[in-house]
Amino acid sequence: MRADSPVPLLGDDSPDAGLGKVVDWFHAVDRMEERFGAAIRHSFDEVFDGQRTGRYHLGQLSKVEKTYIGTKIEIVVQAEFGLQRGRRMDYLIVDEEVDAKWSMKSGGWMIPTEAVGELCLCMTADDERGVFSVGLIRAGIDRLTDSRNKDSKGRLSPGAMVAMTWLAHDSLLPENLLLHLDDVTRDAVLDPKLSGQKRVNELFHRVQERIIRREVVLAVAMQDDGPKRVRDSRKHLQPFGVVILGHQRTHPAAAEAFGVPVPRKGEWVSVTVIDAEPEAPGAALVDDSWKSPAFPSGGRA
Amino acid sequence: MRADSPVPLLGDDSPDAGLGKVVDWFHAVDRMEERFGAAIRHSFDEVFDGQRTGRYHLGQLSKVEKTYIGTKIEIVVQAEFGLQRGRRMDYLIVDEEVDAKWSMKSGGWMIPTEAVGELCLCMTADDERGVFSVGLIRAGIDRLTDSRNKDSKGRLSPGAMVAMTWLAHDSLLPENLLLHLDDVTRDAVLDPKLSGQKRVNELFHRVQERIIRREVVLAVAMQDDGPKRVRDSRKHLQPFGVVILGHQRTHPAAAEAFGVPVPRKGEWVSVTVIDAEPEAPGAALVDDSWKSPAFPSGGRA
Repeated sequence: MRADSPVPLLGDDSPDAGLGKVVDWFHAVDRMEERFGAAIRHSFDEVFDGQRTGRYHLGQLSKVEKTYIGTKIEIVVQAEFGLQRGRRMDYLIVDEEVDAKWSMKSGGWMIPTEAVGELCLCMTADDERGVFSVGLIRAGIDRLTDSRNKDSKGRLSPGAMVAMTWLAHDSLLPENLLLHLDDVTRDAVLDPKLSGQKRVNELFHRVQERIIRREVVLAVAMQDDGPKRVRDSRKHLQPFGVVILGHQRTHPAAAEAFGVPVPRKGEWVSVTVIDAEPEAPGAALVDDSWKSPAFPSGGRA
Repeated sequence: MRADSPVPLLGDDSPDAGLGKVVDWFHAVDRMEERFGAAIRHSFDEVFDGQRTGRYHLGQLSKVEKTYIGTKIEIVVQAEFGLQRGRRMDYLIVDEEVDAKWSMKSGGWMIPTEAVGELCLCMTADDERGVFSVGLIRAGIDRLTDSRNKDSKGRLSPGAMVAMTWLAHDSLLPENLLLHLDDVTRDAVLDPKLSGQKRVNELFHRVQERIIRREVVLAVAMQDDGPKRVRDSRKHLQPFGVVILGHQRTHPAAAEAFGVPVPRKGEWVSVTVIDAEPEAPGAALVDDSWKSPAFPSGGRA
């Protein structure tokens, strides 16, 4: 902590005005929780670099890459919320200096000497469980454990967690689809003996009625131009009665009618359909033909 | 070095068959030198993350990001050349294990214990000078300096450089345009008081007759959809007689006729033009009108 950064001394009952202001600011942000989740998902996916490497799992990253994830998240969160750079800490939010802290484990946030006494935006996620958490805390010296690592960073103590103001707690992270497939499906979808296009065909054929994000298509194809791969899969899967719905035209309405997740921009969902009369229950228009689900109400699961 | 990885003992005059095979393989690759340059450029630009941060200079990166550049280059080169992963080293090229080594300075390559005696693909670039080099060498113990850093990595000795087989040496790196602008132009183009669109307008107005890559537009705009920003700049600059040429329609032919660099996909070049008769020297069709340069043969410089 530098001499020119006075840190409020906190009695147990003194409210932390700076903390309150920053918490209020985040709560006023539209879709705040969803945007934190998207920022963390993007950061993971960018460091996986699935399009070039086919990776989808934190365990596949090198030590350098795992360290870099914290930097990437700091950058993506700053851009997502349009935050200013701080003078001493990472961000300046409603005139308060706030440091971004990432940890792979909740409670694992390390506080360097210069951030002691400062507001910290503590972020973590569990890609296996598909959840993330974000909290704000003032990292007072009394909230750190006594032990220091070799960089003389202290860890927030377990007892300090009660002082954390959670902006999101075990909130849903956009799904890491490849991580959550069963082994047989994943092996089929990532089969290195198949072309990228054939792997994408396998993906949309085998993984139906679930949101498939653009990043998943790129990691499976291991080439650029995901939308082109999807368009070609659409033709390939047509004889199997499988349609791939995107975010345009009648597709979102069809997804809703079919009772499957509704894709947004950069997302698709595939579903097996049969020809239907316009007035049939659950029927919807897909690319100028009336269709209804072949296995309604989750019958294929 | 593991016991199961026999390393050839090299007399001064024994040719290194493995090295020769890998060198031959790279020399047979189409546009090999250009692709190494593009891979290094992409790696730098991805770590700058200009779209989110507006950064364009290695000095603006954190220590973690500088370390990560080596990892990114290893990944991008692997994907660019379609290399297999090695069993012991990073790559397997014509059945030879090859380790990727990045250094910010030529000659600065650090060789960890496990790579001693192995083939190393040594890469470096100087973004200020706009050049890069790539060489192959077998990192024999006799080619390392005696000193070891704390990770017990050795450095290739200056004397070992004569044994380097250069695949590219001080070759031209795709330009880091923002780095190479004069301060007045750069400040105008990155002015934080302007909107992203206005900054892109400034870019194409002030920086004419030079290739402007998509990544530069994104770093200046600090938002996604670079092509949309360029289309809007085109309309904005029309009253000033400035056209922005891309890689489609008559644009490359017009660039050639105007004597300015010819843009490829993801590149643009702006130039001030006047109306011209079709038969006028240097005239070319741009979006259905005949134009010729207002300042022919570099007159504006």
